[in-house]
Amino acid sequence: MSTSTSIPDAQAATCTDGRPLYRQLADQYRRAIDNGALRPGDRMPSMRAFMQRHGVSLATATESYRTLERAALIDARPRAGYFVRARQTAALPAATEPDLAVVPGAAQFVGIHSAISAIVSKFQRYPDALNLGGATASPDLYPTDALQKAALRALRRRPTLLTAAGPDQGDPELRAIIARRALDAGIQIGADDVIMTHGGIEAVNLALRAVTQPGDTVAVESPCFFGLLQVLESLGLRALEIPASPTTGIAIEALAFALQTHPDIKAVVVVPNLQNPLGSVMPDAHKARLVELCARAGIPLIEDDPYRELADTGQPPRSLKAWDTDGTVIHCTSFNKTLAPGMRVGWINGGRWHPRIGMLKFAQSRHNEQLSQVVLAEFLETNAYERHLRRLRDRLRIQRERMAAAIAASFPEGTRFTPPGGGMFFWIELPRDVSSAAFFDAALDEGIRVMPGTVFSNAGRFDHFIRLSCPSTDLDQADDAVRRLGRLAVRRVAHARTP
Amino acid sequence: MSTSTSIPDAQAATCTDGRPLYRQLADQYRRAIDNGALRPGDRMPSMRAFMQRHGVSLATATESYRTLERAALIDARPRAGYFVRARQTAALPAATEPDLAVVPGAAQFVGIHSAISAIVSKFQRYPDALNLGGATASPDLYPTDALQKAALRALRRRPTLLTAAGPDQGDPELRAIIARRALDAGIQIGADDVIMTHGGIEAVNLALRAVTQPGDTVAVESPCFFGLLQVLESLGLRALEIPASPTTGIAIEALAFALQTHPDIKAVVVVPNLQNPLGSVMPDAHKARLVELCARAGIPLIEDDPYRELADTGQPPRSLKAWDTDGTVIHCTSFNKTLAPGMRVGWINGGRWHPRIGMLKFAQSRHNEQLSQVVLAEFLETNAYERHLRRLRDRLRIQRERMAAAIAASFPEGTRFTPPGGGMFFWIELPRDVSSAAFFDAALDEGIRVMPGTVFSNAGRFDHFIRLSCPSTDLDQADDAVRRLGRLAVRRVAHARTP
Repeated sequence: MSTSTSIPDAQAATCTDGRPLYRQLADQYRRAIDNGALRPGDRMPSMRAFMQRHGVSLATATESYRTLERAALIDARPRAGYFVRARQTAALPAATEPDLAVVPGAAQFVGIHSAISAIVSKFQRYPDALNLGGATASPDLYPTDALQKAALRALRRRPTLLTAAGPDQGDPELRAIIARRALDAGIQIGADDVIMTHGGIEAVNLALRAVTQPGDTVAVESPCFFGLLQVLESLGLRALEIPASPTTGIAIEALAFALQTHPDIKAVVVVPNLQNPLGSVMPDAHKARLVELCARAGIPLIEDDPYRELADTGQPPRSLKAWDTDGTVIHCTSFNKTLAPGMRVGWINGGRWHPRIGMLKFAQSRHNEQLSQVVLAEFLETNAYERHLRRLRDRLRIQRERMAAAIAASFPEGTRFTPPGGGMFFWIELPRDVSSAAFFDAALDEGIRVMPGTVFSNAGRFDHFIRLSCPSTDLDQADDAVRRLGRLAVRRVAHARTP
Repeated sequence: MSTSTSIPDAQAATCTDGRPLYRQLADQYRRAIDNGALRPGDRMPSMRAFMQRHGVSLATATESYRTLERAALIDARPRAGYFVRARQTAALPAATEPDLAVVPGAAQFVGIHSAISAIVSKFQRYPDALNLGGATASPDLYPTDALQKAALRALRRRPTLLTAAGPDQGDPELRAIIARRALDAGIQIGADDVIMTHGGIEAVNLALRAVTQPGDTVAVESPCFFGLLQVLESLGLRALEIPASPTTGIAIEALAFALQTHPDIKAVVVVPNLQNPLGSVMPDAHKARLVELCARAGIPLIEDDPYRELADTGQPPRSLKAWDTDGTVIHCTSFNKTLAPGMRVGWINGGRWHPRIGMLKFAQSRHNEQLSQVVLAEFLETNAYERHLRRLRDRLRIQRERMAAAIAASFPEGTRFTPPGGGMFFWIELPRDVSSAAFFDAALDEGIRVMPGTVFSNAGRFDHFIRLSCPSTDLDQADDAVRRLGRLAVRRVAHARTP
């Protein structure tokens, strides 16, 4: 296919949306690559041709190509020009879709804490192990310098930030900015509809405390984030695990059936965008049906949405709350994954339980510290946050592509996984006879941390899965680690099949 | 009484305890004043006599006198020398001791939140009102500059403080320092026995969550801090109010009786030092009996101890935990009242429930932010914290003496109160026919915030009490405000008694 027919024309490029021209052009080429109009190995137009076609300067053309290069979409070949990069798509089959014919069993009280404690204490015995088991991006992907400078400025400008008590529900300026920005997620709220929390996890706690009593049943995705299972355990709640698809998230029909058969369900909790560990993003139609389903059943729908802005789609996906018309959805999110794991800034909109959640937050921990809120407000008000997010998404994409290729090249036959549409997690299904608990121990002996599938279900459904995270180290070292894990998996398969 | 017989001799002054000599000398004179050996109006030794008696330099003598002057214990009279200051002891009778013959009724579910919300929203309608209703000292009594500088240093030294996630249970260095310092409270623990929390209120929440289920009964002091009643309400717990004395705190015999008659009591919560609102400090013998009583009954004793270091005794009082031999006591405290209301740094030692509390803290809100912890560690390691505490206690003493004098001079006959032994609260019993709710409204109309006694009990026991706090403004203005409140109380009495 020649480039002249497949790439965007000059007219499209001049239609402006407020972003710099080079970025608009880069995005058009990205879409052409994504939708296959430009294929791996295709030659990109020469600089001169690009300038003429789009009527732009050399500087704009160069910056467009640099943007695509940083995003690992094109490669420069010396003396030959730019070429669309070969996508390192996995050669492994996609993950198994859940079996929806399974009738959900009884909800169970959660007992996951001791298993997680055992994992944590094993981690502590191997402090130097390479961490592919974490839940944040590599520290160097977060804007340490810029945040430090913003904090220094904030402290100089407002010396009483540490001494004076802050407003109960959070900094009013930050809450107004968050409310405005929530429009990006399709959420229409005002500053008073936002309560700042100690990270997303406090938001989820408050949401569950607002709508349940100990002993109640909560429907969750299966697999689900073990931190949620810990919250359920700590609150004395039962979990009913609803199958979730590696591509589209929670199975709506299965949930609908469960709501009919389990009248004691008092809340539904889902991670709609880049589910942890699946990496799935619910399609809009599913989101609409899920909200409608819960609204009709009168059951609070708690969405935990900290990964939305890491989704690698042209337009970030919307939150479930975007479809909420009657306050059924409690929206929880944070900036821990996207901006700064150390800042512990999250927020909640409690839908029709908002006043009760405000009361619980005040009684539980009073207001958040002010400094982080002021720093965050400055980041969100300038374009520093958006700039950082673009860079973070690009860097994570490169990491994911390297990881996917290494997994595909080294894991044994029978391994399955679906490359996620963003974020930092790989949810890998090993051959069924491989125990992920034993694999976890063996990997740690090799100096590599992984998360065993055992802790992503209270019902033992994922004992042959592992979650790998993008590395907090250089990519070559991670590549090598993934290949060693692959060889380890091959040996575990052989071991399991030795009569 | 001549000064030559009543003041400390040279030998005592030379015995050193590591503090500057001028301070040791000042403290000896303070004790002589406190125990009446030096009485109001007594002349202090001349500088020359002081130097000779204690074998110290002019600089040391001058600094000793300045310290006593700053603490409002002595006054300089021009050309006459220094004199012990007249203590402005209240002319009003001491507060009524609780009636211990009252048999405790049934424990009640708590419903205090709506009353507190109503007060808060009334406060918000009078944003410029003078605040005598708060629970922290005046902002200018906290070391804003020093904390700001420490934070700037910490951020420059450790740029990843905002970006990197911190250790689960808190900064290890800070926890080690806190464990060492806990010896001052009579508590022997190691760094691992300390979990950092979002203020003292999160600590109390975790303690209650660790040992109770919704519907359980908790024994509390009466009156008690309304924040505790809110926590009980938010956790669905019942309160059983045990009478507390304005001088010695919770009535041990009444509690012992309640433990026999109410087998459903699952925890006891007390503020042993400078109880809020009473200002009482439990004598050591009471503390020992209380811990022994709970240990024998096998009931967790939760102590909320944020005011201990504000007690205006020569030696700060000990915590209940000092008498704990089997892990019965859960110790909760914070630096919000003593150092920085904005920093939200508290900690908990969970006694025999420590591991469960660690699990609950992780599930509820993960680790605290790092920056405040690092700043606090620096403050505690140098003598900056002790220096600040001495200054804070001195300033609060001056404020309390002014307030006490103004109350005594202006409130109507039938008003009773016991001047507290430290801290910032005055718990004032108005004549029984004055409604504190009406008084609260009338005070707000006068531009003054007070806290009505209605919110310090779930059983309506203190509807004719008010809590006044030391002012967050200049003392003359506060003096004037207290006198206006006094006149208002006189009018309310007249109003109540008009047939």
